[in-house]
Amino acid sequence: MTSVASFWSPALRGLAPYTPGEQPVIQGLVKLNTNENPYPPSPRVIAAISAAAQQGLQLYPDPQSSGLRQAIADFHGIAAGQVFAGNGSDEVLAHAFFAFFRQGKPVLMPDISYSFYKVYCGLYGIDAGIVTLDDTMRIDVAQYRAPCGGVVIANPNAPTGTGLPLADIEQLLQQQSQCVVLVDEAYVDFGGESAIGLIDRYPNLLVVQTLSKSRSLAGLRVGFAAGQRHLIEALDTVKDSFNSYPLDRLALAGATAAYEDHAYFESTRAAVMQSREDLRRDLIDLGFEVLPSQANFLMVRHPAHDAAALAAGLREQRILVRHFRSPRIEQYLRISVGTPVQCAALVQACHALVAG
Amino acid sequence: MTSVASFWSPALRGLAPYTPGEQPVIQGLVKLNTNENPYPPSPRVIAAISAAAQQGLQLYPDPQSSGLRQAIADFHGIAAGQVFAGNGSDEVLAHAFFAFFRQGKPVLMPDISYSFYKVYCGLYGIDAGIVTLDDTMRIDVAQYRAPCGGVVIANPNAPTGTGLPLADIEQLLQQQSQCVVLVDEAYVDFGGESAIGLIDRYPNLLVVQTLSKSRSLAGLRVGFAAGQRHLIEALDTVKDSFNSYPLDRLALAGATAAYEDHAYFESTRAAVMQSREDLRRDLIDLGFEVLPSQANFLMVRHPAHDAAALAAGLREQRILVRHFRSPRIEQYLRISVGTPVQCAALVQACHALVAG
Repeated sequence: MTSVASFWSPALRGLAPYTPGEQPVIQGLVKLNTNENPYPPSPRVIAAISAAAQQGLQLYPDPQSSGLRQAIADFHGIAAGQVFAGNGSDEVLAHAFFAFFRQGKPVLMPDISYSFYKVYCGLYGIDAGIVTLDDTMRIDVAQYRAPCGGVVIANPNAPTGTGLPLADIEQLLQQQSQCVVLVDEAYVDFGGESAIGLIDRYPNLLVVQTLSKSRSLAGLRVGFAAGQRHLIEALDTVKDSFNSYPLDRLALAGATAAYEDHAYFESTRAAVMQSREDLRRDLIDLGFEVLPSQANFLMVRHPAHDAAALAAGLREQRILVRHFRSPRIEQYLRISVGTPVQCAALVQACHALVAG
Repeated sequence: MTSVASFWSPALRGLAPYTPGEQPVIQGLVKLNTNENPYPPSPRVIAAISAAAQQGLQLYPDPQSSGLRQAIADFHGIAAGQVFAGNGSDEVLAHAFFAFFRQGKPVLMPDISYSFYKVYCGLYGIDAGIVTLDDTMRIDVAQYRAPCGGVVIANPNAPTGTGLPLADIEQLLQQQSQCVVLVDEAYVDFGGESAIGLIDRYPNLLVVQTLSKSRSLAGLRVGFAAGQRHLIEALDTVKDSFNSYPLDRLALAGATAAYEDHAYFESTRAAVMQSREDLRRDLIDLGFEVLPSQANFLMVRHPAHDAAALAAGLREQRILVRHFRSPRIEQYLRISVGTPVQCAALVQACHALVAG
């Protein structure tokens, strides 16, 4: 008899998939574990989706996502041909790894970063060249000089929250001018510096962003890449060999509308940044050490309390935060910035745990 | 200076992506070129989407698509653990090729079938083992005996429209019991026989379906696979190494609602099948040869008229049909079944072209 496992492609065995943060349905939950925006999307987004639902859902969407690419390009002052759109930035990242990083050489990345990068490497048989963060938990671009098939970093980095100045990004682009440098800017709208303005000068720069965080659209699955046309063409080649229609009509309509409501975007991201600074101060007052953050989350630890125990204690009070059981960060908690009410609940619960 | 093409992964060069049917925006167009359903989705689908848009779009969707998997499983009388859901059946097919067909041996497929199968082979470095349709343009399963890494067929086949009886599918599953046999049932609801009822008996059977055709949801991008758990686990492993959240909240809500409106499903697919039979008769009356179809399209040719000229003539009258410039079918047109009004417009236009 055939073992059922023999049906799997051999290269599939041993893959270690990504583990997303949990999405439990619990009444009254304060959910600060997956860096979602605490505010709903713009009302214009919801109106655009409802309109799109009533018109032509039996027809295929535009396979090129032309309207959305144009809206993103207009917002960032680049050309539509410099934008690729996908089903969440995770899909865009996966296609980028496939399109650029299968070079027979390792892809350099931080030891502590978005854990999906190593998963993509496993999926596509790419060696991950791990570069450790420095003692202050920052990316030191001078350490990214080894011969490689590409570089991927998050800026601001996750789960640390700390950003790099553009001068460091430029140094990296110049150091590794022979391969693609992918800068994942999932959190950049909360105080980081975007490298999109550099794409005309660096043919090896690919910037990836998502609408999940600063546009309050984690539930819609839209992300994009910006880069010179030869990079975008590579991503289109992969897309058109994988799934011609990655974005449905509702996602296209909603995402496009999100870029048309500047005021809402500015007000919600300002509110999140204000809450982050308030939360940082409150947690420092409770004795926590807080890493510098330009993101919508804080990476914190308490010198007198075990992180796993704190996470469990918060969970008992229906407050979810993220605890990674990984080297160097196992004593940290990553806390998404919520509304002022959610942050106050967190601070109150932390107070009880660390003072109790 | 570095040539920009050097940034591409070497394996990417030379890929020949899939070419989707065109999606032009032309006033008054009769669009019979991409096998969309001429009827809109169930009103319940649209209501479910509007409700979902107003609730929690800032939160990630369920990464397991649990509710949708359960609805599909209930409809087909199988277990939720026997269902995998993805961003259109194209994504499901891509993941299946990756998960099962990278075996170092060719994957057998018909010479004339969904052209994306060969594209997936190119993407993942799989050899396509081409098996020709017989003289009546049918799949002859006895020809699928060669040693292989897998088998993929469409049933009913596309673009021919002709289906295989389940006895032939069983013969294929028994002949190739050591590898996965993928049966793509994109069009099965228009008169074909689904193999989903066979999955408990055949550990090597994977059935793929889409909501794009019989559920009128091409614009929503939802497809699924049904098979034994060890196959579904392989697909989940790929998904969780590629994109944890392939289906957005709106697609999940809309697709689940589609499975809850049995009456609408039955009435619209019956209407399409009736129109197909009426259209077949009308085209035969005009001298066309029409292949047997259990799908929502007809594959036709006219012994006295060149297919490309007919397609161009129809286009001048704002009627789009699909013409493939491929060996053996270059004298055929693939015509999607529209509403009675659309079909009448097509027949009238054809009449003018072939009698004129």
